[in-house]
Amino acid sequence: MWIYEKKLQYPVKIKNPDPKMAQIIASQLGGPDGELGASLRYISQRYSMPTDEIKGLLTDIGTEELSHIEMISAILYQLTRNLSEADIKKSGFDKYFVDHTTAIYPASASGVPFTAAYFQSKGDAFADLSEDMAAEQKARATYDNILRLADDPDVIDPIRYLREREVVHFQRFGEAMRTPLNTKRIEIIAIFLWKYLFCFRAK
Amino acid sequence: MWIYEKKLQYPVKIKNPDPKMAQIIASQLGGPDGELGASLRYISQRYSMPTDEIKGLLTDIGTEELSHIEMISAILYQLTRNLSEADIKKSGFDKYFVDHTTAIYPASASGVPFTAAYFQSKGDAFADLSEDMAAEQKARATYDNILRLADDPDVIDPIRYLREREVVHFQRFGEAMRTPLNTKRIEIIAIFLWKYLFCFRAK
Amino acid sequence: MWIYEKKLQYPVKIKNPDPKMAQIIASQLGGPDGELGASLRYISQRYSMPTDEIKGLLTDIGTEELSHIEMISAILYQLTRNLSEADIKKSGFDKYFVDHTTAIYPASASGVPFTAAYFQSKGDAFADLSEDMAAEQKARATYDNILRLADDPDVIDPIRYLREREVVHFQRFGEAMRTPLNTKRIEIIAIFLWKYLFCFRAK
Amino acid sequence: MWIYEKKLQYPVKIKNPDPKMAQIIASQLGGPDGELGASLRYISQRYSMPTDEIKGLLTDIGTEELSHIEMISAILYQLTRNLSEADIKKSGFDKYFVDHTTAIYPASASGVPFTAAYFQSKGDAFADLSEDMAAEQKARATYDNILRLADDPDVIDPIRYLREREVVHFQRFGEAMRTPLNTKRIEIIAIFLWKYLFCFRAK
Amino acid sequence: MWIYEKKLQYPVKIKNPDPKMAQIIASQLGGPDGELGASLRYISQRYSMPTDEIKGLLTDIGTEELSHIEMISAILYQLTRNLSEADIKKSGFDKYFVDHTTAIYPASASGVPFTAAYFQSKGDAFADLSEDMAAEQKARATYDNILRLADDPDVIDPIRYLREREVVHFQRFGEAMRTPLNTKRIEIIAIFLWKYLFCFRAK
Amino acid sequence: MWIYEKKLQYPVKIKNPDPKMAQIIASQLGGPDGELGASLRYISQRYSMPTDEIKGLLTDIGTEELSHIEMISAILYQLTRNLSEADIKKSGFDKYFVDHTTAIYPASASGVPFTAAYFQSKGDAFADLSEDMAAEQKARATYDNILRLADDPDVIDPIRYLREREVVHFQRFGEAMRTPLNTKRIEIIAIFLWKYLFCFRAK
Repeated sequence: MWIYEKKLQYPVKIKNPDPKMAQIIASQLGGPDGELGASLRYISQRYSMPTDEIKGLLTDIGTEELSHIEMISAILYQLTRNLSEADIKKSGFDKYFVDHTTAIYPASASGVPFTAAYFQSKGDAFADLSEDMAAEQKARATYDNILRLADDPDVIDPIRYLREREVVHFQRFGEAMRTPLNTKRIEIIAIFLWKYLFCFRAK
Repeated sequence: MWIYEKKLQYPVKIKNPDPKMAQIIASQLGGPDGELGASLRYISQRYSMPTDEIKGLLTDIGTEELSHIEMISAILYQLTRNLSEADIKKSGFDKYFVDHTTAIYPASASGVPFTAAYFQSKGDAFADLSEDMAAEQKARATYDNILRLADDPDVIDPIRYLREREVVHFQRFGEAMRTPLNTKRIEIIAIFLWKYLFCFRAK
Repeated sequence: MWIYEKKLQYPVKIKNPDPKMAQIIASQLGGPDGELGASLRYISQRYSMPTDEIKGLLTDIGTEELSHIEMISAILYQLTRNLSEADIKKSGFDKYFVDHTTAIYPASASGVPFTAAYFQSKGDAFADLSEDMAAEQKARATYDNILRLADDPDVIDPIRYLREREVVHFQRFGEAMRTPLNTKRIEIIAIFLWKYLFCFRAK
Repeated sequence: MWIYEKKLQYPVKIKNPDPKMAQIIASQLGGPDGELGASLRYISQRYSMPTDEIKGLLTDIGTEELSHIEMISAILYQLTRNLSEADIKKSGFDKYFVDHTTAIYPASASGVPFTAAYFQSKGDAFADLSEDMAAEQKARATYDNILRLADDPDVIDPIRYLREREVVHFQRFGEAMRTPLNTKRIEIIAIFLWKYLFCFRAK
Repeated sequence: MWIYEKKLQYPVKIKNPDPKMAQIIASQLGGPDGELGASLRYISQRYSMPTDEIKGLLTDIGTEELSHIEMISAILYQLTRNLSEADIKKSGFDKYFVDHTTAIYPASASGVPFTAAYFQSKGDAFADLSEDMAAEQKARATYDNILRLADDPDVIDPIRYLREREVVHFQRFGEAMRTPLNTKRIEIIAIFLWKYLFCFRAK
Repeated sequence: MWIYEKKLQYPVKIKNPDPKMAQIIASQLGGPDGELGASLRYISQRYSMPTDEIKGLLTDIGTEELSHIEMISAILYQLTRNLSEADIKKSGFDKYFVDHTTAIYPASASGVPFTAAYFQSKGDAFADLSEDMAAEQKARATYDNILRLADDPDVIDPIRYLREREVVHFQRFGEAMRTPLNTKRIEIIAIFLWKYLFCFRAK
């Protein structure tokens, strides 16, 4: 179970509204490579992982991504405070505003509601860890793109922090991928033998 | 931010696999009225709520629903352990198995991946609290339906617990809805006046 | 069955095209809280309602919402007549235009095609009536948002009319919700007892 | 606007529940070629049609398809009355039941919620009438498939009626397609010339 | 199987970037009437067609549409090369850029990911050929709309070529539709008789 | 452009219909990790790749996956030939049959139409190649699951072939990933420096 602690993992303090930037950053909430998909991916995958270490790693990173959902939500909320009607219309934020006012809602930058089709939970440790490494690379690339378009240091600072965390997660998944291949070789060989016998036995 | 505590909110101890029942209960993970949609609904809505009490309430219940995601995941995982190939085929679980083996993945009972289109975050306290009360009624009705189909006491016990929590949440949202109407009347009247002037001023 | 009468429920007479406004109002056709979802919700739910009064109420309001689909369609059609290519490009209407020219098509303001995932038909009177009350609040909030962004009195007039109808519907669903609790108490108690015995009988 | 008349376009009187058949027929409510998509297609397309005759035809057929939605809903409702829990589980209806009990909800036979992506409203008379003719053929083919699987004369009778109506609609759309080519030749040539000049003028 | 030949079916040589135009043309890649849907429609439908001629026709046109996917991709790629950050933000391309940088991804102009719900493969020759004729009309209409909005002769030239191919395909599907009605009359009558006996036999 | 050669990449000769197996294998056509998604992923990604070698590799593998779509389609077609109505109903194939008869249509085993949300084209070589490696692992795992459920040697043979090809592709993407890190180090460093300066320059 989870317990809520009333603080952000990393501070978000944005002074100036910028609804155009909010629309872009929204993709890291509910877009194809956003924090919501990341968190659900790891929290879902952990049950079928073969070792307690990997289960623990997925729980840890999945929990951290929950806190990143909260950071992105705070960024979006602060970027869309105190907007005038003219700001809303001129920035193209009106298409979001009509359905959600200035509330937080997980959708992509284009306004497509979040779908679990963006991620997979395959029940195969190699496939799932490969997916996780790819996911971290894609999230990192999204943050790169946001940084190319961002101007406000108040926005750039937490986005850089989030980008760095994705790099750390990528490395940790890489280690998890290599670990079983080295230190748990016997167990893995056993699994593969079992699979081989199971899938390819004389039929 | 959230902190993970390694225990379930309520124990889940299922001895006998039942892949047919797992497919039904899956809807309370990633279906239209499931725990994932509930959690995201409350965690998203809280930013635009008018009072700290309601923000706190949404954070509390949203966090509890996260723990319910975990309970449902545990139920699904335990119901699909140790299946033979014959069990998988006979129970119709093969359609899920081909894509996810026995991993946890948020989809409806019919296999439709979870979509955020199932819930709304409207940025209007009355609309959002009405949505929340309806959501709890729909989740309660889903648990009623599961209970009509369930036979195993190991399954019925945690499902009944989850059903009761929905009833409690419904009552708490109802109180939140009534509270502003009574004790915060002035603030509310002010909001309405502002809205009135804002929306209907001489155009 | 339905019979068509060749007039609008309330007149729509818009003289000036405004493709930017059309894109916003489109959400009340095919968006998450729009008239199409409303109509389908009520027309679908009525079959499993416990009393003829509630079935009749859902038929009435569902039929009225069909007529609102027509009013919104008329608004959209009139707002996008006689556009020049420059108007189309400058207003961002080009993304809609490429796929639908100036035809009416039920999608959200962001261009996501309408999906029935936006509403529920649960087969439980309390859950469904709660959903209906929430739906009317959400539609009312959408009209509030449209009114904040609208300038043209020809647009504001029918939108205000539609907003008022949502408030009336909300009240009528509220009465329907309370009615069974008061005047049909025995029937309701019977249903609950039946459910209780059905769901929770010694298993 | 539409007016409701409390009778079905054609009587539906099914005595025996058959949840397996209900799941198949459901596709004619909310599936890819179902009555809901048909009705929305015609009601949406009519605004941008070039002549009053075609607008009237689309309104007529769109209104009739609304009544077919009601007939299919009545069939589904009657096929799923008075089910025992054993019937629900054995027939595979449990995947629908968990989310909707025995309420009517527009989804495909596989349980995918209805989406407007199934149809198009293109704003081009030739394209839209071609789409309409194809739609009637596809709906007719769905009814053929239902008839191949149906055993109960109470079900076969209204399904045959609905199938015949699709054939009539196909013919009427075909006539509408040919009409402008013959009797309104001048107008059409004018439209084409305009298009030609508009699209292909020296750029 | 398919073999790749390293050239485009028709040359695409665009000198000037135009991210706004790219967003519109994107719909012919992954939008409702785009080349991807076209190709998949024909390649999927061919298996259940009654004659080798029609199977061959669908294979031919389906293969050509694959090459059109490549042409549209080349247009999109060339229109979004060498963009400055200012170009990206001003043109509204930033919503696509954040998720895909300048990569090719099949989505509609509004950013909705491609879905197979846009097309049908019905297993009935008449229904499928009607769908194909409608599809070609809708694709033609999309190209008309693109041509109304395009200014650059480098863009207009390949778009006109693609538009002409749709007209040719429409005619070829029309011939295929008429052919069985004329020269294969006996076979068709046999199929219909079979269907009649199959579907409508005394039940 | 592509040229069609009238033969399968690997022979498919299935004598006995098996609609239950067809429903499972369908996921490798239009499911989350199927051949259609694979092909579109590679064909889409190649435009933004930094070297001709990687572009060529993606074209090669993307083209081969097109041929795998055809192989899977042939398997599905052969598994659903000559079914009796009783076969259709007993196997649960009726839910597919009602909408597509025995035609090929890209959907998941659960009947969800294919969506491009299943894959990503990110415009970043590292992210895209990571995604590709993960995709091949996930497809391999799906084939493992199919092999666990398959009994017929006529089915097992081409499925094993397809599984082996995924392993080969995984290795080739792995080499492509390592190649730039070793032999193109300077170019890569230049890209990173550029990105660093671009994204993180003094703002």
